[in-house]
Amino acid sequence: MGGAARLLAIILFCYSIFAKTSSLYSNQDFLLVRNISAIPGNDYGISGLSHVTVVGALLHGMKEVEVWLHTYAPGSRTAIHRHSCEEVFVVLKGKGIVLLASSSQMYPGKPQELRIYPNSTFTIPMNDPHQVWNTDESEDLHLLVVISRPPMKAFIYDDWSMPHTAAKLKFPMFWDVESFHLLKDEL
Amino acid sequence: MGGAARLLAIILFCYSIFAKTSSLYSNQDFLLVRNISAIPGNDYGISGLSHVTVVGALLHGMKEVEVWLHTYAPGSRTAIHRHSCEEVFVVLKGKGIVLLASSSQMYPGKPQELRIYPNSTFTIPMNDPHQVWNTDESEDLHLLVVISRPPMKAFIYDDWSMPHTAAKLKFPMFWDVESFHLLKDEL
Repeated sequence: MGGAARLLAIILFCYSIFAKTSSLYSNQDFLLVRNISAIPGNDYGISGLSHVTVVGALLHGMKEVEVWLHTYAPGSRTAIHRHSCEEVFVVLKGKGIVLLASSSQMYPGKPQELRIYPNSTFTIPMNDPHQVWNTDESEDLHLLVVISRPPMKAFIYDDWSMPHTAAKLKFPMFWDVESFHLLKDEL
Repeated sequence: MGGAARLLAIILFCYSIFAKTSSLYSNQDFLLVRNISAIPGNDYGISGLSHVTVVGALLHGMKEVEVWLHTYAPGSRTAIHRHSCEEVFVVLKGKGIVLLASSSQMYPGKPQELRIYPNSTFTIPMNDPHQVWNTDESEDLHLLVVISRPPMKAFIYDDWSMPHTAAKLKFPMFWDVESFHLLKDEL
């Protein structure tokens, strides 16, 4: 091998090490700090929903909290459901209502109707059946959702008069189905 | 009392009932759905910080998660600290860095430096010492902070070479001092 070729080989070797280190660093950077805007939303078969797992149990190994970004198209809504974890909503954009019933009787009954608006926050008391609606005619409703004890196990009601005991378990949640095999913990 | 006076008395009485009911409803509405923009921020003696407890253990009875809104003025930063809870950040606006060290040695040592930017999210591994900086010269850094197992107990370091065992417990946190007497649970 001539001197020039040897020099070129050394340069290429050094570059390959640099590229590897740099790519490793970027990769780690990517794992620790992620761009939410670059995570594609998915409706998971729910009309009008776009769900993004900002950080979660199945995808990122969270044990105690999980954060979602939910976007509801005008007129769309969640199912009536309950869960035995804490849940906090922050309304980033848009408006709508949350319907909130109680777990103290045999069935939910007539829910309270609460208005939600940009920069508002609300929490759902544990086990209280609830439903979030985008009641606006034109604007999407953007919600940051925080839950404890992930992954979520929800009980879904057909209507507000269905007994709590008849609500159907949805587990894993729609967005957890695909990565459910990653779960190593006991449930 | 004449007929007209009696009618006026009845109208006033009905109005007072209506006003009471309406004010009760608004009050409940206010308790369940709160306007984050209307909650005044406070620096709690920390230069450049504005802290808002969006929902918390001491103020709102949360047991499993707590959410804060933190605004850091240009150049300001948190103390170097660690905690044994999960923590998720969502960058709403602004940019900066997070310095992140490890809990696997006797002391933190040289931290990793990770860039954070609008719509980015990052989590702090449990017990890893870290520090968040607004490195921008002109723009505030707005962070939504989610923690598990509130209220937070933090251990504060003077610098990155301080042994983990020498870090000082800060409890209650600066923003929890005033409402600490409300805590009914065991710690």
